[in-house]
Amino acid sequence: MRAEPLTAEAFAPFGQVVSCGAAGREANQGTAQRFDFAARVENLRPHAKANLCAIRSQPRALPLKVKLLERHPHSSQAFLPMVASRVLVIVAPDAADGGPDVSRLRAFIATQGQGFNYAPGTWHHPLVVLDSIAELAMLVFEDGTEGDCEEFPLATSLLVEG
Amino acid sequence: MRAEPLTAEAFAPFGQVVSCGAAGREANQGTAQRFDFAARVENLRPHAKANLCAIRSQPRALPLKVKLLERHPHSSQAFLPMVASRVLVIVAPDAADGGPDVSRLRAFIATQGQGFNYAPGTWHHPLVVLDSIAELAMLVFEDGTEGDCEEFPLATSLLVEG
Repeated sequence: MRAEPLTAEAFAPFGQVVSCGAAGREANQGTAQRFDFAARVENLRPHAKANLCAIRSQPRALPLKVKLLERHPHSSQAFLPMVASRVLVIVAPDAADGGPDVSRLRAFIATQGQGFNYAPGTWHHPLVVLDSIAELAMLVFEDGTEGDCEEFPLATSLLVEG
Repeated sequence: MRAEPLTAEAFAPFGQVVSCGAAGREANQGTAQRFDFAARVENLRPHAKANLCAIRSQPRALPLKVKLLERHPHSSQAFLPMVASRVLVIVAPDAADGGPDVSRLRAFIATQGQGFNYAPGTWHHPLVVLDSIAELAMLVFEDGTEGDCEEFPLATSLLVEG
């Protein structure tokens, strides 16, 4: 399966892209443009705490073997690349049994200036960065219990190509 | 007044720096390190909505004339630079009358990989980026009313140098 460029339209079934568009709302005396509410930040457990954290990630090479997907049933999860070349975003819709429908796996490549936000419960691959060591900010709501993250090992691994 | 490098220690009275340190918690089968809860995300109005947005900002030159400060009394505000060279972070502690104490103004320069989060009510200058057009993600909680942001024009402008 081949990775495609990350666009808001293609990614819409899985979440939102956090990036600057063509024309936003003027701010700071005309020196800035804002693209408000770019992502839907969702916390489905009022007691869970916002974890705005930083992540340093080693790069992986393509093609990538996908062996596992995960999801956060009760929280959206946003990644905002601060120092990064490309980020590989792998997602799958739900199957009828509640697991991921791996036959409809999608892979996207985010480039500089593109953050992304998984909707709550969206099956996705753990963070994969390409090319070089990357540093990202991440926002998710956690309560420190098993409910924060569900993992789903794949019966047969899948290959994502660049 | 001269801008100094942004460090967690120096910025602590005003908020938190969102960046990767030396040793974090291992994640993703050892390919990543997480620095959890790097920032205190605070929403003091339960009805306010999380605005995770993108901002494109034109660069300004140093020295910079500071004519105005602002604050968000009910929300923290995080900036996560996605495409940026340097960001100028200007803050002031409270004066006895509730306005900013401009005699104790501080200026910091954030470099690549450094996000920052203002604590609720912290007086700060509107976003200033240096060197080149920048794109940042921003997180603040808003309800669309005047309470989202207070502005404080300075009686006498101050000069921040690089």
